[in-house]
This record gives sequence, C-alpha cells and structure tokens, in this order.
Amino acid sequence: LQSKQPHIGTTIFTVMSKLANDHGALNLSQGFPNFECSSKLIELVEKYLRKGMNQYAPLSGIQPLREIIAQKTSELYGISYHPDQEVTIVSGATEALYAAITAVVQTGDEVILLEPNYDSYEPAVRLNGGIPVYVTLTPENNYQIDWSVVKAKITEKTKLILLNTPHNPTGTVMSKDDLEQLAAIVKDTNIFIVSDEVYEHIIFDGHNHWSPIRHPELQKRTFVCGSFGKTFHVTGWKVGYCLAPQQLSEEFRKVHQWLTFSTVTPIQYALAEFLQEPDNYLSVSKFYQEKRDKFISCIQGSRFEWTPASGSFFQCVNYANITDENDLALAQRLTKEIGVASIPVSVFYHQKNDYKILRFCFAKDDQTLEIAGERLSKL
Amino acid sequence: LQSKQPHIGTTIFTVMSKLANDHGALNLSQGFPNFECSSKLIELVEKYLRKGMNQYAPLSGIQPLREIIAQKTSELYGISYHPDQEVTIVSGATEALYAAITAVVQTGDEVILLEPNYDSYEPAVRLNGGIPVYVTLTPENNYQIDWSVVKAKITEKTKLILLNTPHNPTGTVMSKDDLEQLAAIVKDTNIFIVSDEVYEHIIFDGHNHWSPIRHPELQKRTFVCGSFGKTFHVTGWKVGYCLAPQQLSEEFRKVHQWLTFSTVTPIQYALAEFLQEPDNYLSVSKFYQEKRDKFISCIQGSRFEWTPASGSFFQCVNYANITDENDLALAQRLTKEIGVASIPVSVFYHQKNDYKILRFCFAKDDQTLEIAGERLSKL
Ligand SMILES: CSCCC(=O)C(=O)O
Ligand SMILES: CSCCC(=O)C(=O)O
Repeated sequence: LQSKQPHIGTTIFTVMSKLANDHGALNLSQGFPNFECSSKLIELVEKYLRKGMNQYAPLSGIQPLREIIAQKTSELYGISYHPDQEVTIVSGATEALYAAITAVVQTGDEVILLEPNYDSYEPAVRLNGGIPVYVTLTPENNYQIDWSVVKAKITEKTKLILLNTPHNPTGTVMSKDDLEQLAAIVKDTNIFIVSDEVYEHIIFDGHNHWSPIRHPELQKRTFVCGSFGKTFHVTGWKVGYCLAPQQLSEEFRKVHQWLTFSTVTPIQYALAEFLQEPDNYLSVSKFYQEKRDKFISCIQGSRFEWTPASGSFFQCVNYANITDENDLALAQRLTKEIGVASIPVSVFYHQKNDYKILRFCFAKDDQTLEIAGERLSKL
Repeated sequence: LQSKQPHIGTTIFTVMSKLANDHGALNLSQGFPNFECSSKLIELVEKYLRKGMNQYAPLSGIQPLREIIAQKTSELYGISYHPDQEVTIVSGATEALYAAITAVVQTGDEVILLEPNYDSYEPAVRLNGGIPVYVTLTPENNYQIDWSVVKAKITEKTKLILLNTPHNPTGTVMSKDDLEQLAAIVKDTNIFIVSDEVYEHIIFDGHNHWSPIRHPELQKRTFVCGSFGKTFHVTGWKVGYCLAPQQLSEEFRKVHQWLTFSTVTPIQYALAEFLQEPDNYLSVSKFYQEKRDKFISCIQGSRFEWTPASGSFFQCVNYANITDENDLALAQRLTKEIGVASIPVSVFYHQKNDYKILRFCFAKDDQTLEIAGERLSKL
C-alpha cells in the first residue's frame, strides 16, 4: 500500500500522553480535564439510555439539540441560524473540521493556515487535494495576526482561510478589529472561512468571543466548528456541530453523511437538555480562569516567562532563559526527569519552528497543578 | 460554493423515514430495530459513565475493546489480528468504510463496486478522486456474483474491490467458493479489498460467515469494516471498527485521526465488557432468523414473491405480478396509502435499475410485523 501520508507519524498527543503514562508523570500535555463532569449531565445520559433513545439519530442531529444551539447562538451573538437547515450535529469537532474542509476544497485550491495550528488542519486540506499556504505567527508579538501578511498570501486560487479562536495552542483570542481587517480582505472574493471555536466558552479577563459570524461580510462565508467536550469536561463524548448558512450547510451535510452518517443519540439528547440551563456553559469561563490563575501562581517561582492565556485551557511558557534545548527534547526530558508532561509548540509549525515554548494544559485539579508547579519551579 | 457533489440529494433512508413519520406508517424502511437493547448493556454504559471514563479514548480505541475483538475474530475464524496494531475502533462502520477507502484510493484509481450496494460507497470513492466501476447483480439468479464479469472489469488502474457480506439490501451471503474465485483473480495484483461486515452476526439457515479474511490470499489485502449497532440493537451508538494487517491498519489510522480522532469512551468500555460473554453475539442470528420467519409468515398471504434472506435484517420481495409501478413510486404509495414504509431497491443501483423489488426491514417487534403483513397482504 503506497502511503498517501508518508510524512505522518503518531500524533504528538498520543506520544506525550504515552510518555507521561510510562513515566508516571503528571499529564499536562494532551488537552483534557482530569476531573469529573457534572453529575447532572451523567444522569441525563442515563435517562435517555433508559428511555430507549439508542437508534440512529437523524443525519443532521436531533431536533432539540439543533434548536438549543441555534437559540444559544442567537442569544449570545444576535445571529440566527435555522435549526433545520443551518445547524448540523457531528461526531466531534474533528469531524466538523474535516467535513467543512472536504465540502469546500477541490484539487489545487489554496488554503490559508495561521500557524501554529492544531494538527488536523493540514492533513485534512491535503487529503482533499488542497495546498496549505502558511502565515506564521510568532511569540514576539504574542501571536497577533498581521493581516497585511494574510492579504499578501491571497491568490486567485485561495479557497479557504482557517481560523481558531480562542486559539490552541497559544491561548490568544481574535478581536473585533481582526474581524474588520479580515472582512476588508475577503470582501470581493469567494473565499470561505472555517472557524474552529471549541473553546468558545473558555475565555478570560472580560474578553469577548469574536467569532467571524459576528461580522456579516464573514458570516455568510463561514463554517463554525464547535463541540461540547471542552465546555462540559467530556472530551470522550465526541459530539460536535457545524453552523453555516443554508447552502454551505447543505454541502457540509452531504459530506457528513458519508463520514459518519449520524452521532451518538442518547448523548445528543442529554446535551440538548443540559444546554437549556445557560449557567451550565456561561459559568465555564470563570471556572477555567481560576484554573489558569492557579497554574500561573504555581509556576510563579519558576524561571519561565509567559503572557497569561486569554482563552482555551492551555498556558504557553517561554523557557529560553533556562536552557537552549529544543522544545521537543525539553518536553520529553521534563516528562521523564521531573514528571511533568507538556506539548512542545514547534509541532504546531509546518517547519517545526522552535521558539522555546512549551504548552501546559491547566484543566487539572488544583493538587495536580500545585505539584506540577513545584516540580517545574526546580528547573 | 461550487458543489463537489451536485447530484447528491437527501438519502433514501431520511426520505422514507420522514415519509413514514409524516403518514404514521409502520417504518420498515431504514434499518434499525424498534425494540430495546439488553438492559445489561445499558447498565454497563452507566457503570463506565459513573466511573469517569468520559475523556478522550486513545485514537486506536481502548485496549480492552481492541483485545476482545481480536480474540473473538481468532476464536470464530482462526485468524489473528494484533490488538495494538491491527484493530482500530472508529465512530461507526460508515467511518470505517470512509477511512479505509480514503487510505487506499488515489486520484484516478478504479474501484469495483458490486451493485446493488449501500449508498455511502460510491460517494466515498468519488470524494477521494476514485472512479467507480460497476458489476451489476440481478434478482434473476438471486444476486449471485459472476466472478468472470468481475475479472473482465479489472484494469491496471483497479485499486480496490468493495464487498459486503451478509449483504444489504439483498440479504445474500458470500460462500467459500466466492472467496476462492476472488482469490484467483487478485492473486498477482496489488488490489485491496474493503469488506463491509456489519451483519456478521445476523446470518441464517446454518450459513457460515465467509469473510474474505478466511482466505489467506485475500486476508493480507483486506480491511474489514465492522460495528456493534446492528448486533446489539443500538444503531445510534456509533461504535465501529476496522481489522487489517499492520501496514494497512497504519494507513487506516492516519486517516481516522483526522476524521474523528477517537470514539465515545464510556460506550467503548461497555461494549468491551459485554463482548466478554460470547452468547451476547452468538445468539443474535437465531433471534433474527425467527424475525425473518415471522415476517415471511406474515406476508404469506400476499402476492409478493421472495427468496428468504440468508443474512442481514432485510427481506427483499418482488412485486412484479401485482403492479408495474416503479419501485420508488410504489414504496411511497404503500407508505401513504397502506401505512407500511420500505426501501425501493433501485436506489442502490447507480442507474436506478428497477427490478420491481422492495426491501423490508424485519428488525421490528412481532406485532409490528403482523400488522405490516396484514396491510401488505391486501395489495
Ligand atoms: C484530540 S487529542 C488533542 C486534544 C487537544 O485538543 C489538544 O491537546 O490540543
Ligand atoms: C445509516 S441509515 C441506513 C441504515 C441502514 O443500514 C439501511 O437501512 O440500509
């Protein structure tokens, strides 16, 4: 079998989680919480399992879940999506990203990626015959997007721009001004946008979630990819969704039906009911801001340098004044020697740019964060 | 947005299930049971939900589920798959099919499909730039495969042959002789096989399940796509798997990680434990054979003609001596007028060949089958 992806190895998340397990290290690498979800949410899944909601859901997802997502989007941002035609439930945000990219990208199309970025974007583009075009963001200016650089990369072949806010791995968020600059660039083009917003409800310090759908010039061309795994501490439940205007949603659904057809039914019902209480998602930012602050207080004694994350459950730190090891080597050494696993940010750049940055996931109980902080402070 | 799939409309399953609902018809169209799964299985999901198994599973699936699938395959067919490298858990058999096809098919590759076939095969081939090549099976000889026709369709570009046994929609099964004939054809080629075996445990009248993996010449080139939804009456749980030799599994996993990354964790644990008791799957054929016989006894008084299904939970019937309506028109009329929904088999042919056949799903409680039989007998 001739490999279609000869350069793809095992993902860094699997590598680092395994290394953490093998060495009994605290696992602050792969992004998932080490605490429980709400027991109310568990009870809701049990309720629908027992009610016999165990057969195929409709391919677009169950009605009550599509409705509450549309309602929440309308209440939070004042933008209306029709639950029947413009909201689609899928098997996690990874599927939403793959389906949206597949719906849009044809062979030879260029797709603009802002790196560092999550590792599924580029392979999804390439498997569809697309050509990734990179805009490189760097820690010097805290990963701000220079839109004139984006503009300069646009050609007649540009089909799609991928965005992610709040941003993994950097913890930055887009601003209203970013949206305006982007809108001016794409205004007279047919360029689409795929916006990865899985950390929508994990945003700090009074920042707003500036989804591209909040600008009309962008909304009409945007596929929002969302999920509930991060918001509700259930990364293993794999229920995500896509919001997009009708014609875009139609093409998205055509792809989705061949990828997974439908998504786990009892969990869809449980989430639909859990989302009825807005506090269940509105309280999450505060919860994680406290986690971020806790983690920062725990590494206060270390020689790392950082800008506090504005969103997501990741904190990046610069270690340049501690060692000149490359970031992958350091992440491995810290896992083995001091017992704290992290993700080296170079893996999120296509040429593995090493800016001496490690990413720590702070979705952990306080004790884990304290011990991690103590260990890291010895460095 | 220029559609990549301009000819794709809404799937027949959605169309007919909706029509059934709108008209209060008995829904014998889309394939899913209208009865409950084992309460033991529900309890197991609850157990693992409460044990906190709610975060990302490994991308290959949880170890105990991979192990028990390997063990069951070894016990039933004497073929060993390594649970760590050759078994992969995915989000339903639809994902398994899409990932296997994506792993293998490059632009311009030809893929042999035996029609009638399940409706996701062709789009998955096309979205990967492949060219479907059809071998048409017909009811005259009960859909037997003429392997000389298959052989005649093979060219230098043939990359893959898609198989399905027990077969949806026809209810036929492959034989040992089929495997031998196929083996002789592919022997000196690099052709791969994707084998859809979601009805593995629903097979009647003492027939054996002749998966292509039971022939060594075929096993080394085969991706088996399986699932648990049909076996355990939980089509809405969306846990499937792929068995393939190591190098094939490696390429399969590379694709899977971009499609969904991982699959719903608590359900994986529940299935792993439920599979420990072989009777839970070995008893299913008998259960469904009784359903088939029940359905057949209920349509005994009708003017349909049929060959009893050898596997799957579908019974096809010929209505040629009742009416010359086309099968789609008749399926719609029966739904609206007599209150029984079915699937017209022409939709499973790329040129919509109408052999006057309807497919009925008999995964329904006896009362539903009785009322359906009464209504159909009036025709
Ligand atoms: C899908 S595994 C990776 C989890 C995650 O989002 C991350 O760690 O960045
Ligand atoms: C995925 S919906 C279709 C269910 C099924 O397998 C069938 O009815 O053929």
